[in-house]
Amino acid sequence: MTSPAPAPRARLLLTGDELLRGFVQDANSGFVAAQLRELGIELDQVRVVGDDFGVISDALVEALERDEVDLVVVTGGLGPTHDDRTSEAVARALGTSLELDEAALAVVEARVRAYGRMRTPEEVATFTPGNRKQATLPAGATWADPLGTAPGYAVEAGGRVVVVLPGPPSELRHAWSGVARTPEVAAVRARVPARHERLIRFWGVPESRASQALVEVGHEDAAAARVTLCARDGELEVSVRGDDAGAVDALVAQLDGALPGSAFATDDHRSVVELVAQGLLDRDWWLATAESCTGGMLGSLVTGVPGAGNWYLGGVVSYANEAKSELLGVAPELVAEHGAVSEPVARAMAEGVRDRLSAQVGIGITGLAGPSGGTEEKPVGTVHLGIALPGATHHRQIRVPGDRETVRRRSCVIVLHELRRLLERS
Amino acid sequence: MTSPAPAPRARLLLTGDELLRGFVQDANSGFVAAQLRELGIELDQVRVVGDDFGVISDALVEALERDEVDLVVVTGGLGPTHDDRTSEAVARALGTSLELDEAALAVVEARVRAYGRMRTPEEVATFTPGNRKQATLPAGATWADPLGTAPGYAVEAGGRVVVVLPGPPSELRHAWSGVARTPEVAAVRARVPARHERLIRFWGVPESRASQALVEVGHEDAAAARVTLCARDGELEVSVRGDDAGAVDALVAQLDGALPGSAFATDDHRSVVELVAQGLLDRDWWLATAESCTGGMLGSLVTGVPGAGNWYLGGVVSYANEAKSELLGVAPELVAEHGAVSEPVARAMAEGVRDRLSAQVGIGITGLAGPSGGTEEKPVGTVHLGIALPGATHHRQIRVPGDRETVRRRSCVIVLHELRRLLERS
Repeated sequence: MTSPAPAPRARLLLTGDELLRGFVQDANSGFVAAQLRELGIELDQVRVVGDDFGVISDALVEALERDEVDLVVVTGGLGPTHDDRTSEAVARALGTSLELDEAALAVVEARVRAYGRMRTPEEVATFTPGNRKQATLPAGATWADPLGTAPGYAVEAGGRVVVVLPGPPSELRHAWSGVARTPEVAAVRARVPARHERLIRFWGVPESRASQALVEVGHEDAAAARVTLCARDGELEVSVRGDDAGAVDALVAQLDGALPGSAFATDDHRSVVELVAQGLLDRDWWLATAESCTGGMLGSLVTGVPGAGNWYLGGVVSYANEAKSELLGVAPELVAEHGAVSEPVARAMAEGVRDRLSAQVGIGITGLAGPSGGTEEKPVGTVHLGIALPGATHHRQIRVPGDRETVRRRSCVIVLHELRRLLERS
Repeated sequence: MTSPAPAPRARLLLTGDELLRGFVQDANSGFVAAQLRELGIELDQVRVVGDDFGVISDALVEALERDEVDLVVVTGGLGPTHDDRTSEAVARALGTSLELDEAALAVVEARVRAYGRMRTPEEVATFTPGNRKQATLPAGATWADPLGTAPGYAVEAGGRVVVVLPGPPSELRHAWSGVARTPEVAAVRARVPARHERLIRFWGVPESRASQALVEVGHEDAAAARVTLCARDGELEVSVRGDDAGAVDALVAQLDGALPGSAFATDDHRSVVELVAQGLLDRDWWLATAESCTGGMLGSLVTGVPGAGNWYLGGVVSYANEAKSELLGVAPELVAEHGAVSEPVARAMAEGVRDRLSAQVGIGITGLAGPSGGTEEKPVGTVHLGIALPGATHHRQIRVPGDRETVRRRSCVIVLHELRRLLERS
């Protein structure tokens, strides 16, 4: 039996002084990495470099010639100003020229005119000198219809491919969907060997426990199946992949058996919000939320999913105690007796919002996110979660270590998993 | 006049298969980059590499020996499992040995016991074998008190410094605050030359317009002052820095003059939420929010700031029309006549939530975030913003290009800037 062909390798190059100076946090590398993984292309490294023509060009040459990657994805530097020199650097690294693409120019100009409706004529005029630049691409490039004014493109030279995407996250995602279908990228995808990959996701299993389970079931990392663990907000994603489908499947089954009752999704990429949505839709139940310390974050998370209007009615951000009584009917005496961060208040919030909005399911969250306000008895990170279902209201108290954002985000994820489990059981 | 000494240079090395496979989006590089900038240390590149001992070690050697950076910051790979080999790679790259630090071990064990209160004895037992590993550090390292079980540390060899931080974002931030004060990092900071930096932030100025203004005022990038532009959700941050304080100050003043009425903050890093908070506190006014398409995101943003309870009462997520009438008193006839996404409904939501919660200021947001539901007359991205102040309710209709999250986030930022401007004028 011959050894299987290796997967094509990719390098991701993020450009932008604003990234190196910390004015903005990269929000694109995770997206591009996940897209490449789904195509079976192996990302070897991500590099972030400044807006410097020489540095970008050198990094491209290093990836293509020294490290011999099959595909380089470059982001940023496609704007209309003189600092935006990515296309120039790509042309130099590939030893090709830049050419004005008349069809791309027509699209860029149409985009500028469309945006012009929202801008003054003076502002639109400032775009014009940059239009031609944004439509000037390395010779032979295949460009994709842009969301904004910067067309992304793919260009091939000597069997290696460079993909260039605009930096703003929504423009990048739109451009990728077009560029991934170009003949240049298709040629790289055609070299991806057949491979087996499974994903199993656990809730409430520490990474160290999963590592131990892998040892217990006799897995060695160098064996037929390669394992990646990723812990995130209490969820643990375990990816198992290899050329031998039987070995991959066996390891997934062994792991599931070694951590009984903890797996919540197998080969299922849906978020916990989407799993909760499914559970609600299956019962024709509606959800309502009442939030104190999370301040609307749970509502924002659930409405981040398109179609949330089919199972989510809305809710209340009861940050002040007056809001708890006025909007949720929580008795002020209850707050006075037990404190705003308490089991009775979490239950009353969940039931109050459920009843106010005539929902079947109500969630109440009240806690201390910090950094100040903690006491010996109720330290920062103490959160009470109430879940009102038809016929019964559940409660759980948690204590989350970490900063304000961690406490808030983790509280939302935990209450969603609690609801998911209750829906699976009911 | 002698040329000023160059700033110390740094490299950031993020480790983790989960980053390269897109299971998780990096949330640390922006933080570390901003911290280095504030210290005056120049970040030359960020690299993301997998959990591979050889790759991490090679990247360290390349940074320290080939590229001769003064400081390498490495994140991740400090966990208790056998995959976590960052400290081993650092020791190899620096040509030093690993030693168990008894004091660090005592702290790690105390942390495990503290977390143990929330975990079963079986789970805690799985930590034990990894404890010694987490307290085994390159010889001579100075470690900082950890938030979790992984102490971050700094270690020096031959005048170059390596800082190692745990990967989870809240642990990393905590560790940085300790490690930045170690003698090793202090020695790098001592080499930072005096330098002048200013920050001016504009609202509603496209990047292309600011670039043109820079040309108009005669600025060349190679001149005495170096300029970085960063556009983010409609805000434009312009950083100007150089050795000549007079030239830096003059350019900031020229830029402000060339874009009249657009600067909203000078040398002020506070977020728009913090600026709104200041405006409300100055008047002893309270805010309440009513959100449809943003689903709680505005509430989540404003309560992300500690102390929000001094000026924010809470609000309503009126996702369904029933919630608009039940919780905000918006007349169903108004929705029937104008549609849920309309000026009258945005105004009624803002006034409704203000009056329900006896606030002085109410915000109402209703719009179409997509991806479906758009029409010719009301395309996706159409959002109505209402701001009810004592005596007058303001309204603005916007159309935001982009995907669901972009429409939602941008709507929140725009309404906050609108409120900021109204508070500045009133």
